[in-house]
Amino acid sequence: MENTEEFVKRYFDKSVTDRERAIFEGAIALGAIYHQFVGTPICKSKDVIKTLEEAIKKTMQLQPYRESIEVKIHPNLIKGQKDHEYDYETLKGKHLDIKVKAKYGSARASVRMRYIPEIDFTLMYIEKLEK
Amino acid sequence: MENTEEFVKRYFDKSVTDRERAIFEGAIALGAIYHQFVGTPICKSKDVIKTLEEAIKKTMQLQPYRESIEVKIHPNLIKGQKDHEYDYETLKGKHLDIKVKAKYGSARASVRMRYIPEIDFTLMYIEKLEK
Amino acid sequence: MENTEEFVKRYFDKSVTDRERAIFEGAIALGAIYHQFVGTPICKSKDVIKTLEEAIKKTMQLQPYRESIEVKIHPNLIKGQKDHEYDYETLKGKHLDIKVKAKYGSARASVRMRYIPEIDFTLMYIEKLEK
Amino acid sequence: MENTEEFVKRYFDKSVTDRERAIFEGAIALGAIYHQFVGTPICKSKDVIKTLEEAIKKTMQLQPYRESIEVKIHPNLIKGQKDHEYDYETLKGKHLDIKVKAKYGSARASVRMRYIPEIDFTLMYIEKLEK
Repeated sequence: MENTEEFVKRYFDKSVTDRERAIFEGAIALGAIYHQFVGTPICKSKDVIKTLEEAIKKTMQLQPYRESIEVKIHPNLIKGQKDHEYDYETLKGKHLDIKVKAKYGSARASVRMRYIPEIDFTLMYIEKLEK
Repeated sequence: MENTEEFVKRYFDKSVTDRERAIFEGAIALGAIYHQFVGTPICKSKDVIKTLEEAIKKTMQLQPYRESIEVKIHPNLIKGQKDHEYDYETLKGKHLDIKVKAKYGSARASVRMRYIPEIDFTLMYIEKLEK
Repeated sequence: MENTEEFVKRYFDKSVTDRERAIFEGAIALGAIYHQFVGTPICKSKDVIKTLEEAIKKTMQLQPYRESIEVKIHPNLIKGQKDHEYDYETLKGKHLDIKVKAKYGSARASVRMRYIPEIDFTLMYIEKLEK
Repeated sequence: MENTEEFVKRYFDKSVTDRERAIFEGAIALGAIYHQFVGTPICKSKDVIKTLEEAIKKTMQLQPYRESIEVKIHPNLIKGQKDHEYDYETLKGKHLDIKVKAKYGSARASVRMRYIPEIDFTLMYIEKLEK
């Protein structure tokens, strides 16, 4: 494991700090989650939502240096009750509230993605840096 | 519900049979599943695999006229044990064995997608038609 | 080529007609296009839209038995002019009008996907069958 | 535009430097490109490859603070010549060589994604930092 990381480090600019690397890894996760899962069919059912939240969390946590991932899909913004065959929606950025904590060496970056109504945009941002 | 289907039917060619409509709906599901979920991080962990299988099944079942969906991700074709940070893979067509049963009116179409080694191709096909 | 098709045919239910196979192939294309490309960043720029339309058309035409694919992304439904950094959108089903003509043997199926405001749904349907 | 950025900045940890923000934006692009486009049908045809490269570049450049994006899809790693109906492949990480230059304030981050055979992994890394 350490050997793999030593090998990988050669590709990185020498001046990259642990804190910058933590930011890098967290940001990749946000871009990845959005573009992998947007478009998935979804409805207000708690069971469907919880299962998708779990799948996003567990699969995306496999990428390097993710310490934790919290996934919240907002059911109140989803229109479908699945009352008839065409009554469902597909996942959009505005439904998502994602927090990723990435850790590299002694540094931690907490990054987040959520919809900001004032700018009508699903914003990705660095919420908190430790160290 | 019936009203929605009556409305929707106007868009379809008048000569479409129930059997053809069932094929149509099943085929959409196969194309959708492949192109939505390929690329998702995955490893040999049974827990990760089972959670992703469940999410695929429950979300894709929301689309119209899916009677049942079976999702199998083959762990033996996945390389990662997540022994180190870069030890995982992303979902590819060859990992998938998907069966979708679509029902429309009195007709049922069972369609399937799975990797066929002889042609090195993840084939989508109509396995069984009822009526 | 014929040999590959002969091999592949063994997987299909024996009662499948050419017309049903054409429907099957067209439907896969619709499901695939939606779930592959929804989520892609997009803005009102004609150049960006045209390039994405071309890429969808040319890549999705590689799948089996697609005779032609027409891709139209509606610029009037897209909000961003890219006047500032956060002024763009991501591709949604409602932006798309896709026609796929699939041909198998002597049969042709023209299938389509487009947003239907009355049901607030991006409907996939069989527009026309020949033979 | 400046007003939007001032608004957005409130969401970020106060200690984030321009250099860290540039890394953040570049990293999002890498995660986004991989998970948006992996799975797209592809073959050795130069025309198909070039069109997809262009579409990736132009759409992903719409996200904030991307100064430039270079997209290279390696045709030699793709198996299909489209000699018969099933003779094509779908885009995988190993086909991609992507360089993103993100600029924020006076800082630039050049980040890259490409397949590294020694670790059988499509690595994302920070290639060069300016300032």
